[in-house]
Amino acid sequence: MTPFLLRTALPALAAALCLPSALGAPDEGQWLPQQIRAMNWAALKARGMQLTKDEFWHPERGGVLSAAVQIGGCSASFVSSDGLVVTNHHCGFGAVNQLSTPEQNYLRDGFVAQDRGAEMPAPGMVVYVVRRIENVTERVHAAQAEADDPLERWARTEAVIDEIVAEGEKEPNTACHVASFFEGREYHLYYRTRLTDVRLVYAPPRAVGEYGGEVDNWEWPRHTGDFTFFRAYAAPDGSPRDYQEGNVPYRPDHWLRVSADGVQQDDLVMILGYPGRTERYLSSVAVADREGVYYPLRLAMLTEMIEVLEAHAATSDQAQLDYASTIKSLANVQKNAAGMVWGLERNAVVQRKQREEQQFTAWVAGSEERRARYGSLLAELHALDREEQETTRKDLVLSLALSSRTSPFLRGLVDLVSTAIRMEPGSDVPESLVRRFGESMAKDFEAVQKPLMTIVLDELRGLDGADTFEARAVLHPDVKLPTDRVVVGLLETSKLTTPAGRLALLRGGAPAVRGSEDPLVKLAVGLAIERDALVARNRRFEGARIELGRRWIEAQQAWRGTSFYPDANSTLRVSIASVKGYQPRDGVRYVPHTTVAGLLQKHTGAEPFDAPEALRTAATERRQSAYFDARIGDVPTCFLSDGDTTGGNSGSPVINGKGELVGLNFDRVFENVSGDFGWNADRSRNVSVDIRFVLWNLESVMPAHHLLREMGVPAGAR
Amino acid sequence: MTPFLLRTALPALAAALCLPSALGAPDEGQWLPQQIRAMNWAALKARGMQLTKDEFWHPERGGVLSAAVQIGGCSASFVSSDGLVVTNHHCGFGAVNQLSTPEQNYLRDGFVAQDRGAEMPAPGMVVYVVRRIENVTERVHAAQAEADDPLERWARTEAVIDEIVAEGEKEPNTACHVASFFEGREYHLYYRTRLTDVRLVYAPPRAVGEYGGEVDNWEWPRHTGDFTFFRAYAAPDGSPRDYQEGNVPYRPDHWLRVSADGVQQDDLVMILGYPGRTERYLSSVAVADREGVYYPLRLAMLTEMIEVLEAHAATSDQAQLDYASTIKSLANVQKNAAGMVWGLERNAVVQRKQREEQQFTAWVAGSEERRARYGSLLAELHALDREEQETTRKDLVLSLALSSRTSPFLRGLVDLVSTAIRMEPGSDVPESLVRRFGESMAKDFEAVQKPLMTIVLDELRGLDGADTFEARAVLHPDVKLPTDRVVVGLLETSKLTTPAGRLALLRGGAPAVRGSEDPLVKLAVGLAIERDALVARNRRFEGARIELGRRWIEAQQAWRGTSFYPDANSTLRVSIASVKGYQPRDGVRYVPHTTVAGLLQKHTGAEPFDAPEALRTAATERRQSAYFDARIGDVPTCFLSDGDTTGGNSGSPVINGKGELVGLNFDRVFENVSGDFGWNADRSRNVSVDIRFVLWNLESVMPAHHLLREMGVPAGAR
Repeated sequence: MTPFLLRTALPALAAALCLPSALGAPDEGQWLPQQIRAMNWAALKARGMQLTKDEFWHPERGGVLSAAVQIGGCSASFVSSDGLVVTNHHCGFGAVNQLSTPEQNYLRDGFVAQDRGAEMPAPGMVVYVVRRIENVTERVHAAQAEADDPLERWARTEAVIDEIVAEGEKEPNTACHVASFFEGREYHLYYRTRLTDVRLVYAPPRAVGEYGGEVDNWEWPRHTGDFTFFRAYAAPDGSPRDYQEGNVPYRPDHWLRVSADGVQQDDLVMILGYPGRTERYLSSVAVADREGVYYPLRLAMLTEMIEVLEAHAATSDQAQLDYASTIKSLANVQKNAAGMVWGLERNAVVQRKQREEQQFTAWVAGSEERRARYGSLLAELHALDREEQETTRKDLVLSLALSSRTSPFLRGLVDLVSTAIRMEPGSDVPESLVRRFGESMAKDFEAVQKPLMTIVLDELRGLDGADTFEARAVLHPDVKLPTDRVVVGLLETSKLTTPAGRLALLRGGAPAVRGSEDPLVKLAVGLAIERDALVARNRRFEGARIELGRRWIEAQQAWRGTSFYPDANSTLRVSIASVKGYQPRDGVRYVPHTTVAGLLQKHTGAEPFDAPEALRTAATERRQSAYFDARIGDVPTCFLSDGDTTGGNSGSPVINGKGELVGLNFDRVFENVSGDFGWNADRSRNVSVDIRFVLWNLESVMPAHHLLREMGVPAGAR
Repeated sequence: MTPFLLRTALPALAAALCLPSALGAPDEGQWLPQQIRAMNWAALKARGMQLTKDEFWHPERGGVLSAAVQIGGCSASFVSSDGLVVTNHHCGFGAVNQLSTPEQNYLRDGFVAQDRGAEMPAPGMVVYVVRRIENVTERVHAAQAEADDPLERWARTEAVIDEIVAEGEKEPNTACHVASFFEGREYHLYYRTRLTDVRLVYAPPRAVGEYGGEVDNWEWPRHTGDFTFFRAYAAPDGSPRDYQEGNVPYRPDHWLRVSADGVQQDDLVMILGYPGRTERYLSSVAVADREGVYYPLRLAMLTEMIEVLEAHAATSDQAQLDYASTIKSLANVQKNAAGMVWGLERNAVVQRKQREEQQFTAWVAGSEERRARYGSLLAELHALDREEQETTRKDLVLSLALSSRTSPFLRGLVDLVSTAIRMEPGSDVPESLVRRFGESMAKDFEAVQKPLMTIVLDELRGLDGADTFEARAVLHPDVKLPTDRVVVGLLETSKLTTPAGRLALLRGGAPAVRGSEDPLVKLAVGLAIERDALVARNRRFEGARIELGRRWIEAQQAWRGTSFYPDANSTLRVSIASVKGYQPRDGVRYVPHTTVAGLLQKHTGAEPFDAPEALRTAATERRQSAYFDARIGDVPTCFLSDGDTTGGNSGSPVINGKGELVGLNFDRVFENVSGDFGWNADRSRNVSVDIRFVLWNLESVMPAHHLLREMGVPAGAR
């Protein structure tokens, strides 16, 4: 394994990256650290970059970029030498939710640890710090070359990656992972420090951290204080270990200085972080399926499910706490699906891809060598896409049917039946196991589990043709009965709804499952079979794409001849951007800054626009704040920039040309949701909370002057 | 009577008008022609005015301003020497609606008269041209001085005005009217030419003329082609006469040149026309009643009524034609009420008025003379306002109960009973009269008349206290019965629902009405009594305000010491403005121009965003149009300016500094609906259709090149 330096990267790629067009062009691209180094730094300097290449990121010594860490599925950054981490409120939402009770409701009221002793272990929060990156492409490709078919190719890839990871993790205190880039053209190994003792330091009240709620989500203008502070702890020698007394604040090698001056329109900003997934190099056929089938169905089903959950959550404070996190996450996905449906159509992505494919085809036809090399490539890709999308509907419904969030009853059922299959027939079944299934299957059954199951089964009943599935018959798909009646029938017929029935199945083991005529058992077996088939199928497609996708990317690069960045894959990236508004529609321009005045204008006193009294009181004196911006005439709240971001960039530090933290990325605008399939200079905008709004909260709203001092910014009114 | 010249106007007013602040200040004010002459023309010239004072308007010779005429409740302008008139589509809507049938649907499909012979008499359209204005203040004040109480003051005012009008109308071909300014401080007599032969020349399809419908109404951004052309005709000698063969196009003394170049951001524009009514000088007490009682009730009732009408209109093409005009007009009033509710609160008008009144009170207290003169004035005004608003709810419900649009059944009922009272007992009742009542009371009875009546009676049942009313008992207000059951009871008990019953009442005359125990007869008598009481009451208040309001305005002027414009009263006014966007809320800016591209973006193929195919086809070639604006990169559709407008300004010509027509005012933005109670530099914006969009329609969409030639603008692609 060679350290990752450009001398080992593909020469064609390196050359492409050096083209000044990469910087003169719109701010498209989620660039790898090494690609940033290869950019035209004179052009970057002209835009406002004041760091040197090595200060920004050095392959061996790291740099400013190294302060960007991963937390859960989000990004975050160190902002002090004592392991203080800032990310989005919505990234810490689950942890704060879990720490809250109706009596001690930190989610609702916010939380400030007045000293380090008061910082509370945050359940589920783990911080990953990238220490080093290596290019392991040759070794992975060598393993893949030995495979004869797609499934084997997938398996050999997994195996060699497991090997590489295991070897890497021999290094002390290291969590490794290998990521594939450019559809398998490259593989990189990440050496990461995994910090599991993460504590909650400061969370604003939900009414600040989620101001605007689902109404404003994916929209501009925003006034959301979407930030929360954590602190990473480690053993006194600095090595990572789980929470225990005696742990001390972790001392990161790199942390960001925090700017008290903020940004102005047209300023250079860079968004650092771990974007999750984009699909910029899909074919027109694949995108058409997303637009026509996948996202519309996802939108419709989630909309129904959220209605069920919201109706129940409204019934009590406890129900509200029980489902807040689920509703928030599903609503986010729902609006994302709506944005995809809107944006793919509005941006005519399919039509653009079709035009590009025609041009590509013409280019291929233009030379004997290209015909030989790429003549069948597009047809192969389209054929693979078409084959994969034969089961789009089934795959989606199945994934919702087996998720504990969207279909807890069916998920519990499949878990129960899978457990039963693994039991020795006639064995003694532990009391606790029976009780666990009983409790989870009974919780909010009538209000939540049953209506969610009805939504899922209704879609399952509607599947047919290529989408048909095992055990379909128990749903009586051809009988003209409303699905809620079918559900009643299933529940009345099945013995699994009683403790005795569940116990009998668990005691009977595999034979009892296989011989059962119980419709819920048959349904669960059918769903499990389909799930396993789906997994196998996906591996085969993955194996096929490792080979085909790699050739497709190679051809794209030969044809386009411009700089290339790989699709997002949850690895460390940089987006270079400007603070910039946009025109969402004719006659309307979104300006890049919002203000506390705008926040107050939205205040209605009712969720999601219920600004806390402390904020409203502090607002009356905000001209005296250190974070008042005279040019804007207010304390700024959020800003727009034309960064290239996606899910996973939540919490991403946004830095200025000096490498100082000026904001936290937390969203994209609605017009940019479909940006995952293609960046658009006119509409691709990411939304950040202005760091001055964060600091104003700590200064004046729910004070934490000790944290301001720790970050080295003014801690009192000027 | 002296001709209206400033030498006869109040010296204090003239002095105030000359203050340069009138032009340095924001573009507030609906100025009288003579006030415009008194402005600082050097400052106007610096803003882009290229006309001289006399070219703009001369008290005896008229000028550019004289091309602005009145049509129905709207404004319009002459745009050719042959009497071609352009106004808004929504101003000609009723006429085009009446000319349409399901088979020949000009409202839906549009209309172009290919030559003058094809121009069609437009029912109800009358054009008024102001020829001369005289100040008749002294004569009216002299008459008023003889009155002893408010009602007499009202009556003497009416009488002297009738006298003045009658004398004025001795001049041939003249329709006079006298308007009161500054709450009765001044009275002006208008000599007008009344043109009754008005013919439809060109109407775009409703899908253009009303593009965006009620969704976009009162909003920005707009893409509405809100224009229609008519032509005034007269006798060959130029004298006005009703439609007849042999009439020829009317030759106006003044008409506007049409600009093919349009306007750009920050350009000076002037809006000419006949604004209907503003209430800028109301007290805080009066505005609080509008905000808290009047507009919320109006909004609630209209919302219910529109639902009834829309449900019925959706049932057939004929129903659509029958109610299109009513729904459009009620929906407009409904959204206006919503805007009032929003804007009065948002702009804190009551609070601002209260502050001003405190300052005024302090000013009064500051001198012995002022205390003597104005000491009790504000208290008197508040007392009068409070007295008047004792019956706000009743007056509003009564006005809706007696309107043929909102309550056709009750209106028909009151007309029937009023007719019966005037009949000689035992007389022969004409068959046609009985039939007329029968037909009108039966039309869409179940679908429209009955539900509308139920809405009104439900409100009437809820009135009590100071609002109680005659014949209330027949509605059983104290019985816990839903009002629709009460209505069923009324209809079952009453004999007026049968022809025989109606005939018997008409034959019985006044004694039959007075002796009747029929609940509908009693209800109708009660409503008629209330209506008459309301009229009498209003006259008394009007008489009181003639005296008190005049003193109030005098005091305001003494206190404020700045220039003053009178409230709108449907007389000829000028608003001086700039093409200018605004910030409707934090983070959002509305830009002042929209384009055909934006129109196409809104197109869904369904009402109200169903752009005709001809338009969409023409749009593909619009870069070749003479009306393509290279600076905007498109054919513009609408623009914003900060004009001071209100209802009645619909169709107002918007002219540039050369006096050329650049647009037709057709709306205000939602944030400016409450502008009737106070202008606001940040939010007061009027919406105009860009004349180039009008001309592009005539050039390329539904061509009428003969009209373009008549207006002297390019008639083909360049």
